[in-house]
Amino acid sequence: MTYKAPLRDYAFLLRHVLKLEDHADLPAFAGADIDTVEQILEEGGRLCEEVLAPLNTVGDKQGCVWSPDHTVKTPKGFKEAYQQMVAAGWPNLGGDPAYGGQGLPAVVQTAFQEMVSASNMAFGMYPGLTAGAYAAIHTGGSDEQKALYLPKMGSAQWGGTMNLTEPQCGTDLGLLRTKAVPQADGTYKISGQKIWISAGEHDMAENIIHLVLARIEGAPAGVKGISLFIVPKFIPTATGEPGERNAVYCTGLEEKMGIHGNATCYMSYEEATGWLIGEENSGLKLMFVMMNEARLGVGVQGLAQGEAAYQAAAAFAKDRLQGRSLTGPKNSAGPADPILVHPDVRRMLMDARAILEGGRAFMLWTSLHGDIARTSSDEAAVEKGNDYMGLMTPVVKAFLTDKGFKIASDAMQTHGGSGFTEHFPASQYLRDSRITLIYEGTNGVQALDLVGRKLAARGGRAVMSFFAEIDQFLAAQAEDAAMGPYLAGLKDAREKLQEGTLWLMQNGLANPDNAGAASTDYLHLFGLTALSYMWAKIARAALDQIAKGDQDPFYANKLTVGRYFIERILPDAGAHLAKLKTGSELMMSLPAEAF
Amino acid sequence: MTYKAPLRDYAFLLRHVLKLEDHADLPAFAGADIDTVEQILEEGGRLCEEVLAPLNTVGDKQGCVWSPDHTVKTPKGFKEAYQQMVAAGWPNLGGDPAYGGQGLPAVVQTAFQEMVSASNMAFGMYPGLTAGAYAAIHTGGSDEQKALYLPKMGSAQWGGTMNLTEPQCGTDLGLLRTKAVPQADGTYKISGQKIWISAGEHDMAENIIHLVLARIEGAPAGVKGISLFIVPKFIPTATGEPGERNAVYCTGLEEKMGIHGNATCYMSYEEATGWLIGEENSGLKLMFVMMNEARLGVGVQGLAQGEAAYQAAAAFAKDRLQGRSLTGPKNSAGPADPILVHPDVRRMLMDARAILEGGRAFMLWTSLHGDIARTSSDEAAVEKGNDYMGLMTPVVKAFLTDKGFKIASDAMQTHGGSGFTEHFPASQYLRDSRITLIYEGTNGVQALDLVGRKLAARGGRAVMSFFAEIDQFLAAQAEDAAMGPYLAGLKDAREKLQEGTLWLMQNGLANPDNAGAASTDYLHLFGLTALSYMWAKIARAALDQIAKGDQDPFYANKLTVGRYFIERILPDAGAHLAKLKTGSELMMSLPAEAF
Repeated sequence: MTYKAPLRDYAFLLRHVLKLEDHADLPAFAGADIDTVEQILEEGGRLCEEVLAPLNTVGDKQGCVWSPDHTVKTPKGFKEAYQQMVAAGWPNLGGDPAYGGQGLPAVVQTAFQEMVSASNMAFGMYPGLTAGAYAAIHTGGSDEQKALYLPKMGSAQWGGTMNLTEPQCGTDLGLLRTKAVPQADGTYKISGQKIWISAGEHDMAENIIHLVLARIEGAPAGVKGISLFIVPKFIPTATGEPGERNAVYCTGLEEKMGIHGNATCYMSYEEATGWLIGEENSGLKLMFVMMNEARLGVGVQGLAQGEAAYQAAAAFAKDRLQGRSLTGPKNSAGPADPILVHPDVRRMLMDARAILEGGRAFMLWTSLHGDIARTSSDEAAVEKGNDYMGLMTPVVKAFLTDKGFKIASDAMQTHGGSGFTEHFPASQYLRDSRITLIYEGTNGVQALDLVGRKLAARGGRAVMSFFAEIDQFLAAQAEDAAMGPYLAGLKDAREKLQEGTLWLMQNGLANPDNAGAASTDYLHLFGLTALSYMWAKIARAALDQIAKGDQDPFYANKLTVGRYFIERILPDAGAHLAKLKTGSELMMSLPAEAF
Repeated sequence: MTYKAPLRDYAFLLRHVLKLEDHADLPAFAGADIDTVEQILEEGGRLCEEVLAPLNTVGDKQGCVWSPDHTVKTPKGFKEAYQQMVAAGWPNLGGDPAYGGQGLPAVVQTAFQEMVSASNMAFGMYPGLTAGAYAAIHTGGSDEQKALYLPKMGSAQWGGTMNLTEPQCGTDLGLLRTKAVPQADGTYKISGQKIWISAGEHDMAENIIHLVLARIEGAPAGVKGISLFIVPKFIPTATGEPGERNAVYCTGLEEKMGIHGNATCYMSYEEATGWLIGEENSGLKLMFVMMNEARLGVGVQGLAQGEAAYQAAAAFAKDRLQGRSLTGPKNSAGPADPILVHPDVRRMLMDARAILEGGRAFMLWTSLHGDIARTSSDEAAVEKGNDYMGLMTPVVKAFLTDKGFKIASDAMQTHGGSGFTEHFPASQYLRDSRITLIYEGTNGVQALDLVGRKLAARGGRAVMSFFAEIDQFLAAQAEDAAMGPYLAGLKDAREKLQEGTLWLMQNGLANPDNAGAASTDYLHLFGLTALSYMWAKIARAALDQIAKGDQDPFYANKLTVGRYFIERILPDAGAHLAKLKTGSELMMSLPAEAF
């Protein structure tokens, strides 16, 4: 049950669908022509296949072990793999060259991230969280802070964490209680309890830099009184080495359904020394820098777990002999046919393919817009890139994780009884993937973010720009008969999404509960539309390659899976539209005591 | 997080929707007027709430422990609870009075079974499997076998198991290898390895009666050469007491994602003494007696886990304070509103209610047809009862378990991060419920059974009879305006189901892969139609009660949840129909090596 990095798909998507070479003028792409990118991903894929994937089961079975001296031991082999990864410079793929990073485009980093998450999600979270903390310091830190922390966090020599949640506050950060008391030397004493801190303590990095939300004494109540602090486990010395042990301790690990290889920590801050990052009382803004980074990363995890689970299911379906094809034996020499001959098994595998291949395009396309937004000199492109990043982030997070979990569940189903045992990987994928629907803002919170904030921002400019791009594509392709089915699907989805958007505009303002009631169905309708667009772009690229005489069956298969998406996945769009238009009245009318 | 037996719902469904009193002429109902039934369920509910539910977490955390002497220790408290249940006669609720059973209708037993499964699914499987084995002996055993085994198995003093699966054969029993060698004394020596035998060994019953599929030496290959054997753990003495230890051993336990409290055993038969039950080479027929019993039972488990998970989620949503209502604070005195005020949280809870309450009606309605089929003197009713039992069994099994798992997942989502921890019950419900989609025939196998066997049986008589019943209901209610929304929903679902049925008739015979490709979507379309019918019947009964002046808000709530079903669940029917009509071509066209 070995993981295979989807390198062929990356090469196709980056070269022919997203056409990275058209963006060669962006600074990030200066050292990253498409051949180099392919080579990097190939090497990264090897690390994931050969080093991280074999540790995935180990991590699940052993978990992390906490000791009363507040240390946490990671599963056997994690530390060596971490060192290997750091030594080879992988965490710094997208890091700022000013601080020792390689400065590669986010789109390349995203592909690498998918492979890491697919091969070992629990492991990948250690550098993943570090990258989020890195982004917050990069955005909001002083020059001194950046110089002190970014080089070592970029390389993942030092880890990083996000400390938001407290027992009484998760989604609602206004209820936060951790306090920060200003000291004469400009530092703060941080005191409070945090829970569910991923990678909060471990034995792989020489230091761990905690980014902690806390309330400065006397700050306003609610979300307007929250500041962000840097609280290192070991306070760096003048020369930037880990120095004195700070008063922040892991007081235990959370017992959870999956991602056992990642340490989910209870953290206790006992007048720990912290440094304010950014302005007083504007911690939430910086926290959202981490959070948005993290949300895209969680969407990638959802897709990645789906991919890994699909691969295991496909291997099982080709291997397991049971029953005969309904249309006559396909493996007459054997005692039975492989279960891949059964349409209902194919259905589950094809459903997975249609979502994963379209979803991968969506994830990389969104990432590329991030690169454009960050580095392009074309103002209109920057504006659109920023608009898209805002609009698509909740969709990437929630749609890809909902679907990733569904794929993991279907992958277990493909395994039959074997899937429910812990001897096959299906259970771990199902258990690990389940957290992606919850953390960094539940998928319900993503849906609210989409309909309540992102849609309405700047008069709906982002979504209108998305519709315009689709319309332009449809118009440009209209004459090509081979594109017919893909265009028809896209047109249908686009019309439904527009209808849903109009309904929200007309009904969501009058009664915000209508927006809330419609939000999840709207987000899924959005995701299906985005994937319809991606499949149309994929079909275009595949047809172009075929027209050029490339006879790799890869392209014909893409055309098939794309049509399958239109015929067997897209019909859900109509159901989502019908549901979202029913409003909130029935949903909200039972009295609380009736539940 | 305590489980509350849904007694109010049973009372309503049995009294007003299924109108048990109209069936008072059936022998099974002789000792079971509706007041008595309610009293029995109340007492049974108390056992489940007070004895079984508190052991559910214990079972999950401790699991079962195997020892090299082939014994299995069940979790702390299970044995005492089992003895209490046996002493009070609960397992024999529906048992044949000729063998000491109470002879109560299956519909009552089904309600009790739901409560057992909801409060402790892993525990409930021990008597559950016994009931399946009981049914097989009751149907196929000789008078001597019945006299020897049924009294003690009926009381669950002795346990029972079903031994089908072997490493190389699960769904495809034709590949079965366990062999039976006839002996001079009329017994057989049974040898072979079985896997995944639920309740195969434990410390709660004084004997365990294994029903074992095996191949008599020289029997034809494939499914035509399979016989069924009784293989007791302890061979009964002349006086019917457990005697000599038989050569059947549990050689280990399966490590699995959930139902840790149930022993899933590897069984080794080492020339164990067995007795043929029924005819030589006709073991599959009897096995299906157990299997059909078990499949309905698994559907009940799916619903039950959904109910338990819903209850935990609803309690959490009323308790957890986080954020404010979009329409202004609802709990101004508190630091935040309970999350029940958020429409997207309501959506998950209301989705659950719409499925659970309609599903419970469907499950009991199907059970009642079983009672009619078994005991009515009206030939037409018996025929229809048998037709329905055949047709509905795969739907009850697969639809209710698919939905039960989805509800368990939504219940975890309602919990947010807490749900992923093992301190709240959501994880166990999710993990336990997942097996119900797999065992006793995967849900894909159920769907094939529905489209390949049950639909076509006797020229489609069963499904036509179902359509006719719906039409009759629609016609009879047509004039009642208050029934409008429910009738419109039912009519819509019925038309779609008919269209899907016609499509299958026209396309499934020509190419069986079309039937396979459509099967799961067809089954879900069927389930949605059945629940639409149930909701229409529920609405009718609720309106009648309201018209009689009963002011219990229970009835108004039913009308609300029923409309929610029509508006927010039923739109999926259109998507299922569109998908199933696409046929198998795209699904089957990728070559095997492309997976």
